[in-house]
Amino acid sequence: MRTIDWNDESNTIQLIDQTLLPREYRVIECKTIEALCEAIKSLRVRGAPALGATGGYGIALAAVLSKAVNMDDLTKELQSAAKTIKSTRPTAVNLGWGVDRVLKATSDAYDLEGMKSTAIEDAKQIADEDVAINKKIGEYGAKLLEDGDTVLTHCNAGKLACVDWGTALGVVRSAVEEGKNIKVVACETRPLNQGSRLTTWELMQDNIPVTLIADSMSGHVIRHGSIDKVIVGADRITEDAVFNKIGTYTHSVIAKEHEIPFYVVAPTSTFDFKGWEGSVEIELRNSDELRYFGDLQIAPENVNVYNPAFDATPMENVSAIITENGVFKPPFLLDEVLI
Amino acid sequence: MRTIDWNDESNTIQLIDQTLLPREYRVIECKTIEALCEAIKSLRVRGAPALGATGGYGIALAAVLSKAVNMDDLTKELQSAAKTIKSTRPTAVNLGWGVDRVLKATSDAYDLEGMKSTAIEDAKQIADEDVAINKKIGEYGAKLLEDGDTVLTHCNAGKLACVDWGTALGVVRSAVEEGKNIKVVACETRPLNQGSRLTTWELMQDNIPVTLIADSMSGHVIRHGSIDKVIVGADRITEDAVFNKIGTYTHSVIAKEHEIPFYVVAPTSTFDFKGWEGSVEIELRNSDELRYFGDLQIAPENVNVYNPAFDATPMENVSAIITENGVFKPPFLLDEVLI
Repeated sequence: MRTIDWNDESNTIQLIDQTLLPREYRVIECKTIEALCEAIKSLRVRGAPALGATGGYGIALAAVLSKAVNMDDLTKELQSAAKTIKSTRPTAVNLGWGVDRVLKATSDAYDLEGMKSTAIEDAKQIADEDVAINKKIGEYGAKLLEDGDTVLTHCNAGKLACVDWGTALGVVRSAVEEGKNIKVVACETRPLNQGSRLTTWELMQDNIPVTLIADSMSGHVIRHGSIDKVIVGADRITEDAVFNKIGTYTHSVIAKEHEIPFYVVAPTSTFDFKGWEGSVEIELRNSDELRYFGDLQIAPENVNVYNPAFDATPMENVSAIITENGVFKPPFLLDEVLI
Repeated sequence: MRTIDWNDESNTIQLIDQTLLPREYRVIECKTIEALCEAIKSLRVRGAPALGATGGYGIALAAVLSKAVNMDDLTKELQSAAKTIKSTRPTAVNLGWGVDRVLKATSDAYDLEGMKSTAIEDAKQIADEDVAINKKIGEYGAKLLEDGDTVLTHCNAGKLACVDWGTALGVVRSAVEEGKNIKVVACETRPLNQGSRLTTWELMQDNIPVTLIADSMSGHVIRHGSIDKVIVGADRITEDAVFNKIGTYTHSVIAKEHEIPFYVVAPTSTFDFKGWEGSVEIELRNSDELRYFGDLQIAPENVNVYNPAFDATPMENVSAIITENGVFKPPFLLDEVLI
């Protein structure tokens, strides 16, 4: 199934619980906004494009759950739900984008039922568009990969980060579909190990060769010539920087030092027109993520921890950005990227 | 107590089991060479200087356990034990150094009992010298740290890596002893988390401020100006490269990119006169270290893993090497370093 989908029978959101992978494959159902917010915060669903669909479905869920008897009241409820959903991951621009798009769509409806059905239809359309966009991104990106390439990736910018196919891993999938042999080196991505838990799992499902390494090993493997390209996703792209999972910047410096391409793969919805690096709040996550691994204590209980979720990679370290509108090389002109 | 010591009553080796920290502080006794080798392989005792003493005590233990009735037979037994002990960690030059030094000392003895007592005495001397060397290293290194500095370190080059005091953390301790305020940022050091388990623990014991980060965050924190110096230990230093815990090279590239000093701290016993980078075998460790965290499965069971224990940092990335003979800046002339 898709990473996240609408269940027409129960009018609820269903999603693959990614915190249980690779040990268990389980689909959970979100019947309330609280359950959905918990799923977002706990990273049961994560990844920029998937969060766009999640935001949209969230407004659809708020609409079908509402007991409002007039359009004004429903609008107020949806606005309140929008705020609640957006606050779960403040740095993830796609979440807010999906929320706002469906919210806006409902404002064009003529009655209460129309608002509800519009919310569901528009959210579904976001999901369908996401799959189509990823296929288009894959098509453009695959041209940059050569037969025999080994690419290093960080975190999970795969089908599990999207509705389907994937961004960075979508490019790999498209290249493999074209008949190229591509190997992937997956960084485990501390502290939540999306690389070891998700990227390896989904590539192995598709029989694409993958080798797992610790994040700090990127310098060693790149220095030894084992990597041809670095390819990562993005959570937000401003005019001056790419925000992505913490650790991305470090890999970009290593790639620059050894003169290998550093590609960012993202739908244009990831672009933040108004923002620049200094304007973006970096989400700080719970210290216990570095103190415990499951139930296992791996650091003194009261040790001071700094745990940012993202870092910023300045544009000078980026070789190209691969979008559904094409591949863009420096200098990046947003007008061009967004056509 | 010291990290590793000789128990005169039982004629055994006692050491702090570092695999249990920070959850539990337990001292274990090694009564056989097999138990000692298991402790080395499982990293119950680890760190270049501590392994020097461990190697020495290992030969002492082999000597007191021996039932040989003449010097030739004892010599053969000690040579066999030496081989067994050295094979547990092939990249760690200090282990072999300690083994060989005590082995050689026994060859000067006049009788069987003399060989045994010489082995014990010489092993104890290695341990005492190690503490004295670390204090001397600290004295030299402290001059490079300024009041208010924040230093980033990788793995554990502390008292737990030595007999006492520490190398990289010994420099921090000496600077603090001189009245300087020094803060430490400790990288967790995947996959075995010596940074989160040991470095944080021993610094907190001494009330030295420490903040734990994931290894991949070094780029982010250094780019944001939060770090004044990087300071690491070494497992082996050849003319062209510093071998240290995997991840060290990555930090060195980040330090170079942002023009902050990258200091290597090590006793001169870490220098490998005959070696160069290409001549050193990089130990590959068990894949399960990246597939499991304790009992928790964090990657697909049969995923391909690359898990080197060390990496090589080329000398051009090193700002200075701090030894008990002084601080040496590039170009490094081994004759000078070793006086």
